[in-house]
Amino acid sequence: MADKKLLAARKISEHNTPQDCWIVVDNQVWDITDFLEEHPGGPSILLKYAGCDATKAYSEVHATSVLTANLPPEKHMGVLDESTIDEEWTKQPPTENSQVVLDNEKPPLHTLINSHDFESVASKTASKKTWAFYSSAATDLLTRDANKSCFDRIWFRPRVLRNVRSVDTKTKFLGVDSSLPLFVSPAAMAKLIHPDGECAIARACGNKGIIQGISNNSSYTMEELRNTAPSTNFFFQLYVNRDREKSAALLRQCSANPNVKAIFVTVDAAWPGKREADERVTADESLSVPMAPPKVKNDKKGGGLGRVMAGFIDPGLTWDDLAWVRQHTHLPICLKGVMCADDAMLAMEAGLDGILLSNHGGRNLDTSPPSIITLLELQKRCPEIFDNMEIYVDSGIRRGTDILKAICLGATAVGMGRSMLFATNYGQEGVEHLIDIMKDELETAMRNNGITTLEEAGPHLVHTADVDHLVPESRQHPYARKVARGRRALHLPKL
Amino acid sequence: MADKKLLAARKISEHNTPQDCWIVVDNQVWDITDFLEEHPGGPSILLKYAGCDATKAYSEVHATSVLTANLPPEKHMGVLDESTIDEEWTKQPPTENSQVVLDNEKPPLHTLINSHDFESVASKTASKKTWAFYSSAATDLLTRDANKSCFDRIWFRPRVLRNVRSVDTKTKFLGVDSSLPLFVSPAAMAKLIHPDGECAIARACGNKGIIQGISNNSSYTMEELRNTAPSTNFFFQLYVNRDREKSAALLRQCSANPNVKAIFVTVDAAWPGKREADERVTADESLSVPMAPPKVKNDKKGGGLGRVMAGFIDPGLTWDDLAWVRQHTHLPICLKGVMCADDAMLAMEAGLDGILLSNHGGRNLDTSPPSIITLLELQKRCPEIFDNMEIYVDSGIRRGTDILKAICLGATAVGMGRSMLFATNYGQEGVEHLIDIMKDELETAMRNNGITTLEEAGPHLVHTADVDHLVPESRQHPYARKVARGRRALHLPKL
Amino acid sequence: MADKKLLAARKISEHNTPQDCWIVVDNQVWDITDFLEEHPGGPSILLKYAGCDATKAYSEVHATSVLTANLPPEKHMGVLDESTIDEEWTKQPPTENSQVVLDNEKPPLHTLINSHDFESVASKTASKKTWAFYSSAATDLLTRDANKSCFDRIWFRPRVLRNVRSVDTKTKFLGVDSSLPLFVSPAAMAKLIHPDGECAIARACGNKGIIQGISNNSSYTMEELRNTAPSTNFFFQLYVNRDREKSAALLRQCSANPNVKAIFVTVDAAWPGKREADERVTADESLSVPMAPPKVKNDKKGGGLGRVMAGFIDPGLTWDDLAWVRQHTHLPICLKGVMCADDAMLAMEAGLDGILLSNHGGRNLDTSPPSIITLLELQKRCPEIFDNMEIYVDSGIRRGTDILKAICLGATAVGMGRSMLFATNYGQEGVEHLIDIMKDELETAMRNNGITTLEEAGPHLVHTADVDHLVPESRQHPYARKVARGRRALHLPKL
Amino acid sequence: MADKKLLAARKISEHNTPQDCWIVVDNQVWDITDFLEEHPGGPSILLKYAGCDATKAYSEVHATSVLTANLPPEKHMGVLDESTIDEEWTKQPPTENSQVVLDNEKPPLHTLINSHDFESVASKTASKKTWAFYSSAATDLLTRDANKSCFDRIWFRPRVLRNVRSVDTKTKFLGVDSSLPLFVSPAAMAKLIHPDGECAIARACGNKGIIQGISNNSSYTMEELRNTAPSTNFFFQLYVNRDREKSAALLRQCSANPNVKAIFVTVDAAWPGKREADERVTADESLSVPMAPPKVKNDKKGGGLGRVMAGFIDPGLTWDDLAWVRQHTHLPICLKGVMCADDAMLAMEAGLDGILLSNHGGRNLDTSPPSIITLLELQKRCPEIFDNMEIYVDSGIRRGTDILKAICLGATAVGMGRSMLFATNYGQEGVEHLIDIMKDELETAMRNNGITTLEEAGPHLVHTADVDHLVPESRQHPYARKVARGRRALHLPKL
Repeated sequence: MADKKLLAARKISEHNTPQDCWIVVDNQVWDITDFLEEHPGGPSILLKYAGCDATKAYSEVHATSVLTANLPPEKHMGVLDESTIDEEWTKQPPTENSQVVLDNEKPPLHTLINSHDFESVASKTASKKTWAFYSSAATDLLTRDANKSCFDRIWFRPRVLRNVRSVDTKTKFLGVDSSLPLFVSPAAMAKLIHPDGECAIARACGNKGIIQGISNNSSYTMEELRNTAPSTNFFFQLYVNRDREKSAALLRQCSANPNVKAIFVTVDAAWPGKREADERVTADESLSVPMAPPKVKNDKKGGGLGRVMAGFIDPGLTWDDLAWVRQHTHLPICLKGVMCADDAMLAMEAGLDGILLSNHGGRNLDTSPPSIITLLELQKRCPEIFDNMEIYVDSGIRRGTDILKAICLGATAVGMGRSMLFATNYGQEGVEHLIDIMKDELETAMRNNGITTLEEAGPHLVHTADVDHLVPESRQHPYARKVARGRRALHLPKL
Repeated sequence: MADKKLLAARKISEHNTPQDCWIVVDNQVWDITDFLEEHPGGPSILLKYAGCDATKAYSEVHATSVLTANLPPEKHMGVLDESTIDEEWTKQPPTENSQVVLDNEKPPLHTLINSHDFESVASKTASKKTWAFYSSAATDLLTRDANKSCFDRIWFRPRVLRNVRSVDTKTKFLGVDSSLPLFVSPAAMAKLIHPDGECAIARACGNKGIIQGISNNSSYTMEELRNTAPSTNFFFQLYVNRDREKSAALLRQCSANPNVKAIFVTVDAAWPGKREADERVTADESLSVPMAPPKVKNDKKGGGLGRVMAGFIDPGLTWDDLAWVRQHTHLPICLKGVMCADDAMLAMEAGLDGILLSNHGGRNLDTSPPSIITLLELQKRCPEIFDNMEIYVDSGIRRGTDILKAICLGATAVGMGRSMLFATNYGQEGVEHLIDIMKDELETAMRNNGITTLEEAGPHLVHTADVDHLVPESRQHPYARKVARGRRALHLPKL
Repeated sequence: MADKKLLAARKISEHNTPQDCWIVVDNQVWDITDFLEEHPGGPSILLKYAGCDATKAYSEVHATSVLTANLPPEKHMGVLDESTIDEEWTKQPPTENSQVVLDNEKPPLHTLINSHDFESVASKTASKKTWAFYSSAATDLLTRDANKSCFDRIWFRPRVLRNVRSVDTKTKFLGVDSSLPLFVSPAAMAKLIHPDGECAIARACGNKGIIQGISNNSSYTMEELRNTAPSTNFFFQLYVNRDREKSAALLRQCSANPNVKAIFVTVDAAWPGKREADERVTADESLSVPMAPPKVKNDKKGGGLGRVMAGFIDPGLTWDDLAWVRQHTHLPICLKGVMCADDAMLAMEAGLDGILLSNHGGRNLDTSPPSIITLLELQKRCPEIFDNMEIYVDSGIRRGTDILKAICLGATAVGMGRSMLFATNYGQEGVEHLIDIMKDELETAMRNNGITTLEEAGPHLVHTADVDHLVPESRQHPYARKVARGRRALHLPKL
Repeated sequence: MADKKLLAARKISEHNTPQDCWIVVDNQVWDITDFLEEHPGGPSILLKYAGCDATKAYSEVHATSVLTANLPPEKHMGVLDESTIDEEWTKQPPTENSQVVLDNEKPPLHTLINSHDFESVASKTASKKTWAFYSSAATDLLTRDANKSCFDRIWFRPRVLRNVRSVDTKTKFLGVDSSLPLFVSPAAMAKLIHPDGECAIARACGNKGIIQGISNNSSYTMEELRNTAPSTNFFFQLYVNRDREKSAALLRQCSANPNVKAIFVTVDAAWPGKREADERVTADESLSVPMAPPKVKNDKKGGGLGRVMAGFIDPGLTWDDLAWVRQHTHLPICLKGVMCADDAMLAMEAGLDGILLSNHGGRNLDTSPPSIITLLELQKRCPEIFDNMEIYVDSGIRRGTDILKAICLGATAVGMGRSMLFATNYGQEGVEHLIDIMKDELETAMRNNGITTLEEAGPHLVHTADVDHLVPESRQHPYARKVARGRRALHLPKL
């Protein structure tokens, strides 16, 4: 290389763009423009030294020989003329200086890389009351924790050497296309964490092509959501009101809204659960409400947001009321909150369109079974149900691997509630970012299991022996059977 | 709304009561008096802004449209005359300022919302010796911890769409009515934590309609308790004295006291357990007792309250002595402290009226079986016993869900001991508050399982597979069988 | 009581001994001398107020009525003459002031109430090297921890209403009487923690009537131990030397010492285990030994005390060598360190007198099975062995309940090693205190299980289902079977 | 001894070498030169007092009698002349003063005594980015942790009284001799932690006689490695490039390199896993790369080293491509990354030479099965495979006991990846030290299990019941079976 021409430092510095990129290693000048995209370590680390001396950084990772071995001779542009080195040249490129983020500030969105991050940020930046309301669960939090840990105790049986170049997460449920087997579980009062509330979620769902479940206690009306996100598909989560006429009006509204694709009747919250974190915050606040009427003051059951908001819900709702629901809507009807196979079978016999296995995120009855366990119970006790209804699962989904496990075990799609609320902390962009993350995690999980479409997912890809003993056998109660018979007699019209 | 009249700030402020409540949002004035009770978020948050500008708080939760959509036009009273805004008006209502409670002070009673809270407060505010005596358990605390964790490992199988508007926790046991399947387990020396001691508990039980078990080591006599709480039903927990005549006298006293409904003969404390926290406190104290007789000074077994109090108890008590008990009382006789099915069957054969499955709160023999496991052992090995005797359970009950699980598995009623002592920290009101909490938790658990009466509770509602391996199979010891035969020959009269 | 005579404060103060004890409650003076021993709360708390005013302390625990109800009228000695109250009288008795013990000082012996306490004190007061040598175990400490936790996972099935007034822990093994089914496991170099070393243990064992195992690496010779404790029974733990003649000499010495009752040939330390805490301490020290020969300097295996001390042990020891041992002693021969049923059966076939199930306290091979699991393996695979040999167990015994569990499952006696070394921290008195504690714990466990002699202990009193899956089934290796056949051919004489 | 001559302190001090070593105890002077090597406590502690007064240190451990009893009278050289004692004499030898090592400094290599130590030191002394890249694993780290804990839950069944004087860890695999059943698992970019990178590993492997796996992403080329370590055997880990010709060139290079013994085709990284620690570090850095092209800037999947380095890997690789691999090399072909028995059987049917059970150290798919569980799956579902192929295992090996367990369960050899990288922190010497440690641990484990060659290792020495439920049963998927049939039809030539 001795016969190569000498190059001035200032001249070299000009070749500092992705389209024209030179670097210097051991005084030799190389044009690496064509090599940028091939670099196993990615282009950005190379571009950091574009037009600069990269000797130090290079030798930390590579032997000297690698460069010569990998680049054709014509890319050797010359030798650095050391006499031209000036102060500017010897200045190193900016070093890694991670931004300092205070504990009560939201870090930049792109530094959040999983659903746990969104939860962690919300715990530090949402108001005390909002955090308590969103994060709390029933009493000793056993179901909340088991929701996640039961997913963790299911193991994959990955297959190798399958062509997984292209992967497709698309599916169809509730009669509409979805880019993912994922929907936003309905959750109340998203406005507490961001002024855009459910509107932000709606626009994100529209952009990303997934369905949003709208809570009866949404901060925004269904019309507002439709206006802000005209291409988003919704389902409506109904809490049946003690005053039936109010619910009937809602059902008619839903039916008139072309974006609403189904009604999910909530059945896992017959009575408001005892969410103690929530109740503690509000209990403190009530100290400073001198005008509260005696009735509230004496309420020893606490006054958490969850409990007071549930005041209008009818705990008298029964299977018979589903016929009444049917009268007020032509939309598919699903149950949200089935927790055992017996009720799943009743729902199938009643001709419903789908069931969402859910324990309300562990928020209502502590030691109610984790949803993924209920899904296994269906596999064990009534596998025929998967041919008759769509089966959804929520409660405990935090990872793409969780989604894939549920799909393998027969779920049509899964919902995420709390995590989506925590993502709303960053508005629409936050929710889109979380959906992107979930999609990437799901694709990665599919590929590393050796599949490329959801149709290939099946029980053969998972091993559930570590949780199988938690799955109940059939142990029908006479009373339950009587209800079942009554139900069949009802002839609730097949939708 | 432009034609609505202008309203002066001072005028608006006068509508600040539950009976006449206006609020201002975006300068529009609304009369929300009729809407207070309907508000999904409860009335108190609205009343906080009665007669004030609620714009900021409102928009944190609701979209602008919600108000107009939910209130009839005639409730729109006018528009705030901005020229009338003064300093008084712009003052915000008092913000949330939670009371500061020092670590060694009792926080206000209403901020305690579960049984754990009472324990936590007692740990910080009771005297070192009292806390040690109440909270301690045998040696490595394995049974104490398993008592609770075994409940936690039993899962519900909740049913949905049952009418659970009205729920009824009433039951009857020991021949008397009880508002709950719950009694106060007998526990010694309640006066240590509050001057009213067992009197406070007695009055609370009377008011709340549950039965109180009186310890042989009560701070107050049975007569005093009856005097302070004439409507309370009691049972008496007998420790049989080495000097039988003293116990006979007690039995006669009980029989003469019309409030006493049964005798529970203690059998799970044949010998005082080694409660090390208790012994450590007293061991320290004994250092400063220069006059203690040599015998005590040299006692290397420690001198915890539990151990010294047990000095009079006869470790020679046998099945034969039950006939002697029978001679001194006409009351039903139960055993307190059965820990295996073999002894439960002996009790049934001996014609006793009931048994309390108990390991003395884990205070006597470490790694004795959790009571809920013993209950399962009865289900497995002698289900017929449930038709012949009342079966009570204590040790480890902390939640309404625990109560319901025990009832589902065949218990007639359950007892709480330590928690009730910790509640006595707040006197009668504290015990009443804890009973209310337990009732609310039980009702919530029943409703969210889809039942409204205790009769509907049964094994079909729980899944015990995670603890089933801890339940012993039959493995009769020849010696035990011999005792059993002896017992049958005794012809102890059926009560 | 108005007619009772007035008594001067100074007069009352004189009745302040256990033989003559007055107290004042609400100004009434009572003679409680005869009641001292009857007091459920023990005499010492009363004696604290002997000759004093006890009103405050009394009313913290008792209702006013209790005193009058429990004492005969003639014990009412009169009324305090309030005019005689002086400064001396109003002074309260000394309050609880626990002694301050610095963290690196040994607290008073009587404040140590269990074996864990001795370990905790040793960890703070022994030298760094001593603590490392005694406490360390092989690599990741899995066996050390499982030794204890497997005991904790075995549950009792306690029986009630048995006469447990007198309890007897006496037994006989190795042909000699023992006050307990407990011996001191041989452990090396007790002098590290106390100058009296094994002599302290020997005298304590003599006084308390239990057998001491002497380590081959004892700080004192067998003769010295016999001299200091002429009534103590020993067994000798032999590490067979690479130089057989040295071991033969030791065996002859043992046989000539009338206090030595048996030889335990060590077989669970064929090769020194990797005890990392031990090796770290010594590794540090070696830094300051500039003269160490090259061989030591280059030894990358570390130089913990355990490893260097093992230098003379012959890893070539086989079943054939037992015949050689037999030639040099008439004493019973046992194996120390059997870890599976296959070797236990070989030992039985070889005609040995006993085996000590031991994994060397988890010090040699990590994930070798906990001894209590090996005991269960014998129950499962060769129950006949219990009729043919004495079976001892050590490794993990910390509680009286642990002793009882091992006895219930067939052990003849159990050994404690580390705990006894930690007790030696306090010399002879410390070891005696620990033996007393173990005896008290064992008696308490027996009584609360409803038994009074060790003969009554049996498998019916324990439930092992939580560890049963850890017990291997028969899975004989061909090679093992060949060895067994070879052994039978040897005709090793039955002792 | 009174007639022995008096010796001057200064004279005694001269005997202070291993070849001539005197010590003084209680003023008596002994020549212990010949005893140094016999000392149960090792020679170094004695040499510390060579030529000095050892009275204090001696009496801490030994009784006075021991010295006289163990040394022949002629080694008693005389009595210290106390009149000759001077200041020099009374100075004690240097005390233990462990070197102070700052937290971010590497402690001396010989103080690292196990693989965990190397990890711990690397966590403190490697750059943030290097640590993140090496230590990170997929998402919630469940597989990474289970890799280790599953080994910990397998118990040995050690045999005693076997002659274990000589132990031999030698074996042969991939057709070459190895001093251990251990190889270095291929891992990328060893230069990040030490300038010598893979060269250091290569030289260490050569010296210690084990095989090194070379990563496709090695910092040095295969030629460089061969040059620096001409006697080392390698295998090459191939990531098949999207551009097949590049891989073909590599395969030809491998085939031409006589030190390369086999090709391992990577199949457990079809798609780069989500290693969050890795991605967090790089995500931060990318903030300071203003010139990065839009494509990189918008990449919400993060840009960890692992992910960017994987850019060239072909996710479209299938079983068919193995025939293509065959065309470009005559070397044995193995699969690296088989995770279930179904694929193992396909590999056997395809005529491959071996499979490496691996989940990429838990780095790619979280909740993929621990490798040791996959090994058990082979035992259960296709034991015949062990007669047909060599089976290697990596992921989770940290101890010699782990190696032995894998060998007992049928593995031919095991690999260590991360630990070897962490050892490279100390260059060649570090890797040699770690290999020595693993060899010592393996030998110790073999001996304490009673075996001396790897041939004796077998399933009879381990008990796996605590993890057996994690091993899947056969549950063939139709699709998998179709692939298998297709494979048989291919007639991939048997190597």
